Amino acid sequence: MRVGFLGPAGTFTEEALRASAPSPVEEMPYATVREAVMAVQHGHADRAVVPIENSLEGSVTATLDALAGDAGDVRIVLDVVRPIIHCLIGRTGTRLEQVRRVVSHPQAIAQCEGFLRARLAAAEVTPATSTAEAVRAVAGSAEPWAALGSRLAAALYGCPVLAEGVEDRPGNETRFVWLAPVADARVPDATKTSLVFWGPGDRTPGALVGVLHELSDRGINLTKIESRPRRVGLGHYMFFLDLDGGEHDPPVAAALEALARRVESLRVLGSYPSAGAA
Amino acid sequence: MRVGFLGPAGTFTEEALRASAPSPVEEMPYATVREAVMAVQHGHADRAVVPIENSLEGSVTATLDALAGDAGDVRIVLDVVRPIIHCLIGRTGTRLEQVRRVVSHPQAIAQCEGFLRARLAAAEVTPATSTAEAVRAVAGSAEPWAALGSRLAAALYGCPVLAEGVEDRPGNETRFVWLAPVADARVPDATKTSLVFWGPGDRTPGALVGVLHELSDRGINLTKIESRPRRVGLGHYMFFLDLDGGEHDPPVAAALEALARRVESLRVLGSYPSAGAA
Repeated sequence: MRVGFLGPAGTFTEEALRASAPSPVEEMPYATVREAVMAVQHGHADRAVVPIENSLEGSVTATLDALAGDAGDVRIVLDVVRPIIHCLIGRTGTRLEQVRRVVSHPQAIAQCEGFLRARLAAAEVTPATSTAEAVRAVAGSAEPWAALGSRLAAALYGCPVLAEGVEDRPGNETRFVWLAPVADARVPDATKTSLVFWGPGDRTPGALVGVLHELSDRGINLTKIESRPRRVGLGHYMFFLDLDGGEHDPPVAAALEALARRVESLRVLGSYPSAGAA
Repeated sequence: MRVGFLGPAGTFTEEALRASAPSPVEEMPYATVREAVMAVQHGHADRAVVPIENSLEGSVTATLDALAGDAGDVRIVLDVVRPIIHCLIGRTGTRLEQVRRVVSHPQAIAQCEGFLRARLAAAEVTPATSTAEAVRAVAGSAEPWAALGSRLAAALYGCPVLAEGVEDRPGNETRFVWLAPVADARVPDATKTSLVFWGPGDRTPGALVGVLHELSDRGINLTKIESRPRRVGLGHYMFFLDLDGGEHDPPVAAALEALARRVESLRVLGSYPSAGAA
């Protein structure tokens, strides 16, 4: 099985993939979330693993936008919650107090801001396109640089971990999803359903109360709601909902039918067994 | 009046500030949204202008998080919607087809992806911390580089505009907000109110329907809803709402009172005259 993921090698996404793959798989790194999702859409990969939500930073909007947009034949088949433990990774011989530049993805930098201020106040901070890319840059440099990244990336690029767990807040977790073509997405033991809808008209937020009623009247618990712009001008939103229950459970099935009549567009993004929120 | 803004000089935020300042002001650039907001909180600036929402990218989460978090004495007093027109900016003598590297903020790069693929497929793309920082880097380099940024930045750094309006989608707009200390935030002609709430308990999404009812039962129109993580673990959200009407209009005042009884925490972020959604 060919499994795409948000690469390069050594990202937290690859850590999640390895921790949750049912058997050995062929790993295929992609440069962006969108490319990984579209690889499943176009049949270049059998599955993909991408991050969808972080406990500090919120939703991974690239994932939501791809699933609601062009990836109409891709479904979520599993979600996996993983702790995100950031390491400060240097080159062999570099000591923490010698580090003059810290490279990482802006989200990782934001999550370790307090540590950087306290321990590396004089170091310059440089953005990278991923945490793994940052570790690769540090591994390939002769300067006293360090990266914020995963333990897996440190191992892959042969760099020592100068400090582990340098994130400012404990309980930093990311929810990852496994994606499959819709034809392979029949999940018998689904306990959670994700969907996106928009419309009618310009005033979806005002109509939202009616939509939520279709759920609450049937005793269906909503575990997440997120609005995203529809990219057609300010004030036009789409809504992503996660709810408890599989899409074929009678109350959920009835609610989905009722919802479809209320909105302009409704798409089930997946119905799958859930790791649950921590 | 000292007005903080998301700097450096030449950002789209500075363009918005200049377009909406009632009279000449002392402009104070800050490196991050959070620093600009906290400058008002701590009295280092009288006002601040920061972006809060883009029609393509969605909410500016740093702004929402600062307003809902430490900036408890800061209120929104005005919002301003501005078109975002990206320019490809080079050095004098560089022609578009010679450009070998494009530097910009990742959001600007994302918004001009189609243009870059069509016209500059061979150029390397490098992230910068802001569009203005990118223009400054290009101005200071001797290489055939170009930046994506504002016309104001091109003028400030003395660089020619190689192409204007290079964003992939028309109608790219950003909503900016003026912030003031709560003591200065009495706005007589408010037409819009922004608020944030969370709780009770872990299951706020499930309780959301009751909260929205307090608005819809009073005929109050909701123009925006956004969920953000509370940063205490997956599954804990806070909700940002924008609604039509000033906070002292009787139906809005009554709804706010009822809301406060339903939720764990409710904060009015501002009540102000609105530019409206485009």
